[in-house]
Amino acid sequence: MTKTLTSDELERALRAVGAERYHNRHPFHQLLHGGKLDRGQVQAWALNRYYYQRQIPIKDASLMARLQSAELRRAWRSRLVDHDGDGSAPGGIERWLKLAEGVGLDRAYVESTAGILPTTRFAVDAYVNFVRERSVLEAIASSLTEMFSPGIIAERVEGMLRGYPFITMDTLAYFKPRLSQAPRDADFALAYVKAEARTPEQQEAALGALRFKCDVLWSQLDGLYLAYVEPRLVAPGAFVPGRDGGSR
Amino acid sequence: MTKTLTSDELERALRAVGAERYHNRHPFHQLLHGGKLDRGQVQAWALNRYYYQRQIPIKDASLMARLQSAELRRAWRSRLVDHDGDGSAPGGIERWLKLAEGVGLDRAYVESTAGILPTTRFAVDAYVNFVRERSVLEAIASSLTEMFSPGIIAERVEGMLRGYPFITMDTLAYFKPRLSQAPRDADFALAYVKAEARTPEQQEAALGALRFKCDVLWSQLDGLYLAYVEPRLVAPGAFVPGRDGGSR
Repeated sequence: MTKTLTSDELERALRAVGAERYHNRHPFHQLLHGGKLDRGQVQAWALNRYYYQRQIPIKDASLMARLQSAELRRAWRSRLVDHDGDGSAPGGIERWLKLAEGVGLDRAYVESTAGILPTTRFAVDAYVNFVRERSVLEAIASSLTEMFSPGIIAERVEGMLRGYPFITMDTLAYFKPRLSQAPRDADFALAYVKAEARTPEQQEAALGALRFKCDVLWSQLDGLYLAYVEPRLVAPGAFVPGRDGGSR
Repeated sequence: MTKTLTSDELERALRAVGAERYHNRHPFHQLLHGGKLDRGQVQAWALNRYYYQRQIPIKDASLMARLQSAELRRAWRSRLVDHDGDGSAPGGIERWLKLAEGVGLDRAYVESTAGILPTTRFAVDAYVNFVRERSVLEAIASSLTEMFSPGIIAERVEGMLRGYPFITMDTLAYFKPRLSQAPRDADFALAYVKAEARTPEQQEAALGALRFKCDVLWSQLDGLYLAYVEPRLVAPGAFVPGRDGGSR
């Protein structure tokens, strides 16, 4: 029934998943990048997204624990360095905390993750569990949303600097290194998936993994939209702008 | 700092979690029970909730796999019988499929779970993973939302029969056995938690587990509200009423 794709066809099919499902198409991002949110809404985004940032190296370490080759683990290890830092230059988690502080959140409140939406927690945890439980091919394919991220980052930085007086280039320092890190990581993962997904079943598994990961990102924005844009239905215990977590 | 609660104080604290966070307080349930939804919205509820029903015995089997006493496993086993059936009387999953068919969904579409919201999948999977990973005490405490379910079921059956011409008592056959099963299960789990949660840490863990479970239920309704009530933002690939899954 299903035929085997050439590696270029597989790449095109993976890119088509992004075109259909990547979260740059979500209305929350359109509001965020368009400067249409208020400070409390931007805080809610930064607060919830922190949980995602924080779990990424846990996801990567889970994957590395399953890689049988030193070469592969070494290549993947750069992601840990990017997110956790090297003890001198701050890593992605630390830079995200700066972003959260920059939009007026209290660092300890952010780090506690006490105010995040249940929907955020469940989506992020789903990603970590997926990488723990599925095949290595699927785990690596699920990282391929990075193929689409340079576009969204450029859009976001430009839009947020223009749209929000309370945001500076310094606040957004998280994103700059990502513009080179994400393509490097995506190139590596894409080459792996193109080389290893050879049967129709493996190719479908890789595409399914990328769809799943798009769902993980999408669901987080769904949660933010419902709670903080419309109809502003905040789950019991979650962050309420102006009441919780403000440093100033 | 924290003092040990008596077992009656612990029960009151557990009930207070329900009063604050149980999903009968969610606007989606108020619409559902008040007869305010259209048929497509009721379908979306039945379709998504099927995934929860289907994973419950997997959750219960995961828990039983961790119970070291035949007595405890035997007591818990009745839940498997309730959900999976005994081969003659239909179990809860089968009765839920009848409900889904009763509101006009195609059985195979429902069973495929292809149309459920990512938010539903992540919340339900979070529950199964919680029961796999946390202490047995927390796993059992997370089932205590059943303490609150007879009230919501009575409200739901009455409200749905009155509010929706396309719903009959037969369609709602799922719920009738639950009115006796849920209190029996909740009594057992509550007695276990009251007996085993003796230190302040154990008591806080039990309360946290119940809060977590309330979040699992709440997040599912958040997803339904966003996609099918307001602002009707359906995640790519998920059920669209009138387009997908209809049997008639």
